[in-house]
Amino acid sequence: MSFPYDPLLLQSRAQTLVELTRTLAARGWTPATSSNFSMRLDERHAAITVSGRDKGRLSTDDIMVVDADGRAVASELQPSAETLLHVHLYRRLPAVNCVLHTHSHTQTVASRLYAGGGRVHFEGYELIKAIAGNSTHDATLTLPVLPNTQDMTTLAAQVETLLDAGPLWGYLIDGHGLYAWGRSANEACRHLEAFEFLLGCELDLLRIAPQRASRLG
Amino acid sequence: MSFPYDPLLLQSRAQTLVELTRTLAARGWTPATSSNFSMRLDERHAAITVSGRDKGRLSTDDIMVVDADGRAVASELQPSAETLLHVHLYRRLPAVNCVLHTHSHTQTVASRLYAGGGRVHFEGYELIKAIAGNSTHDATLTLPVLPNTQDMTTLAAQVETLLDAGPLWGYLIDGHGLYAWGRSANEACRHLEAFEFLLGCELDLLRIAPQRASRLG
Amino acid sequence: MSFPYDPLLLQSRAQTLVELTRTLAARGWTPATSSNFSMRLDERHAAITVSGRDKGRLSTDDIMVVDADGRAVASELQPSAETLLHVHLYRRLPAVNCVLHTHSHTQTVASRLYAGGGRVHFEGYELIKAIAGNSTHDATLTLPVLPNTQDMTTLAAQVETLLDAGPLWGYLIDGHGLYAWGRSANEACRHLEAFEFLLGCELDLLRIAPQRASRLG
Amino acid sequence: MSFPYDPLLLQSRAQTLVELTRTLAARGWTPATSSNFSMRLDERHAAITVSGRDKGRLSTDDIMVVDADGRAVASELQPSAETLLHVHLYRRLPAVNCVLHTHSHTQTVASRLYAGGGRVHFEGYELIKAIAGNSTHDATLTLPVLPNTQDMTTLAAQVETLLDAGPLWGYLIDGHGLYAWGRSANEACRHLEAFEFLLGCELDLLRIAPQRASRLG
Repeated sequence: MSFPYDPLLLQSRAQTLVELTRTLAARGWTPATSSNFSMRLDERHAAITVSGRDKGRLSTDDIMVVDADGRAVASELQPSAETLLHVHLYRRLPAVNCVLHTHSHTQTVASRLYAGGGRVHFEGYELIKAIAGNSTHDATLTLPVLPNTQDMTTLAAQVETLLDAGPLWGYLIDGHGLYAWGRSANEACRHLEAFEFLLGCELDLLRIAPQRASRLG
Repeated sequence: MSFPYDPLLLQSRAQTLVELTRTLAARGWTPATSSNFSMRLDERHAAITVSGRDKGRLSTDDIMVVDADGRAVASELQPSAETLLHVHLYRRLPAVNCVLHTHSHTQTVASRLYAGGGRVHFEGYELIKAIAGNSTHDATLTLPVLPNTQDMTTLAAQVETLLDAGPLWGYLIDGHGLYAWGRSANEACRHLEAFEFLLGCELDLLRIAPQRASRLG
Repeated sequence: MSFPYDPLLLQSRAQTLVELTRTLAARGWTPATSSNFSMRLDERHAAITVSGRDKGRLSTDDIMVVDADGRAVASELQPSAETLLHVHLYRRLPAVNCVLHTHSHTQTVASRLYAGGGRVHFEGYELIKAIAGNSTHDATLTLPVLPNTQDMTTLAAQVETLLDAGPLWGYLIDGHGLYAWGRSANEACRHLEAFEFLLGCELDLLRIAPQRASRLG
Repeated sequence: MSFPYDPLLLQSRAQTLVELTRTLAARGWTPATSSNFSMRLDERHAAITVSGRDKGRLSTDDIMVVDADGRAVASELQPSAETLLHVHLYRRLPAVNCVLHTHSHTQTVASRLYAGGGRVHFEGYELIKAIAGNSTHDATLTLPVLPNTQDMTTLAAQVETLLDAGPLWGYLIDGHGLYAWGRSANEACRHLEAFEFLLGCELDLLRIAPQRASRLG
């Protein structure tokens, strides 16, 4: 059988995705079969987790290939509607090779609280340096929060506008979770962990000393 | 020896229950030997965890069979009083094949806080879609909270009334914990994780911005 | 070489203690080499963890034998000062075979907050039934909080007075942690988990709705 | 090939560092490839984790050697800028053999809240005894909080001043994390765990009963 993508590369990417997914699932960031994770295969294809699988027990059989429009390639499986947000990022950002979407408690609660103002501002954290392009804790970092919708075209258009405005490595969707990406799986994972950490600190400031946290807007 | 149920099916169900129970115990949702888990065997029998065992060290020897009235079958063991709530759901809901009852911190605290109003309302969460029958985050989801009692007949009668009112995949008991169920072990587990996640988010909204959380009533 | 205790029994108890200790350490209840755990060997001897060892990497070499006065038996090791509180319970309560002392975050914070009133009251929790002698959630359960001191004789005298007043399966020491015990290692562990769980719920009620929590006194 | 340090000792120290780092990473104290850990090799050399590696998947290949000025020895790798704070402690404190620097949620939030006053005071905790030189919970323990800067010389000068004032086993940097050290890897780890625990308790007192916590200043 012949494939429009490199099957050996798929095998390697699928293995990386399975290991990454199990690690993130073990932290409780993928509750109730939510979340999806992908890696670019080539200009026209990406490998992505099949929707609805238990992320803590994922195997390489739970990875499928989609094309640049998010349609299944050489598979009977129906990819998740959210696949469109992954392929949108690969089309728009040629340097990006990995997109991670999780639903952690912290991401969800923060998205609810900051949706009104449309963004979370981070200031004074050393870990701002973990986001590509920041070399000092003095930088300010902004994570946009988009309104939730089941219409992926609307969401993708809003992300377009954000990307037009400057470098961006993640966004929250209200009541839903976080998208984070990077040039490699390691970088995407570092960005995901940094956003999760920074959001967790802001939520705790809101619990203890709200005047020191990013304004709810 | 002959059994009134399929012993090979019991073996398979027991293995599934043991794996599921150990996973949930590792998350701390079964403190102090609490909680019980069951799967339907046939119209008249279910497999259920033996009461009082450490759920983190469960083996298939800790699974017993009960009949439709919750009595032990081919076993000297005394099933937990709460077995009645499991078999009640199997009798009433023919499509249901798995019932999970846990005592997590989040479930217990939420049940205490929302018992007065008799319910928790969830709105605006993507994870509402994890509960069968919901296809958008715009749905509102209600989780009933029943008063606690040691009288299982009273509890079962209250659940009857709730089931008469429409589709239901879980309920809380005040100061006690959560019952969640599904057509398969995977679906029951997805429902359990979704309710736990949604309750955890509501508790955090109560800590940070109470006016945004489901009203305590 | 001959021993004043049964060396095979010691071997078995040491193995049980090592497994139990590693489980509790993995939950973070034994920070910074704190905490100690013991089991009765006979009327005059108990096996206890050696002071100052990392509880997450314990082996049976880290278990020593002490006599009824808390002195090392057939060992050059110096037992912890807190050994006296273990042997005190074995002397006073002949049915008790296991004593567990942990320093969890929840136990420590609760002990600080409730030290003023000298006790925590638990009401309306199903898990009250996990403490021996309670058969309904309608029972009220009291956990005493003693002032901290480095003088173990003073502490033991206060525990004497508490035990004179009625059945007791645990106490907190201010800023320090919890002692819990039982007729078996399983029962002691169940009591420990139940107290930890109930204290965790009360702390969360204090964070969210203080008027519903046990009064700080 | 000959080395200016003992290669067998390096092998042993690297193994200790890898095990320690993986343990701390599993607790979530090293988010987004942050944190670094070192052990002294001799008067002029230390082994230290290579910057930017995922601390949860560290191997001995991720350990490098630096000299007393923090420069790479027999390696092409560029050590982290923060290496200077490690070697500074080894130069100044001859008895110290291990330095640990982590970025936990608790350390970061506490550093933000207490930066204004420049210190956290701990009183009334049994775990104060886990810090070398304290034999009773009645002692008061102070953990300094330094302003964050990317200029390591400034930070090192401030630490000098703190060390001149008396015994010290750790400090926080605002928005950044904790440095803790000890005469052995075990002692450094005990100090790290004790500071993390004590900070966690203080943050919870701030959430529940701020008047009982160390003053924010």
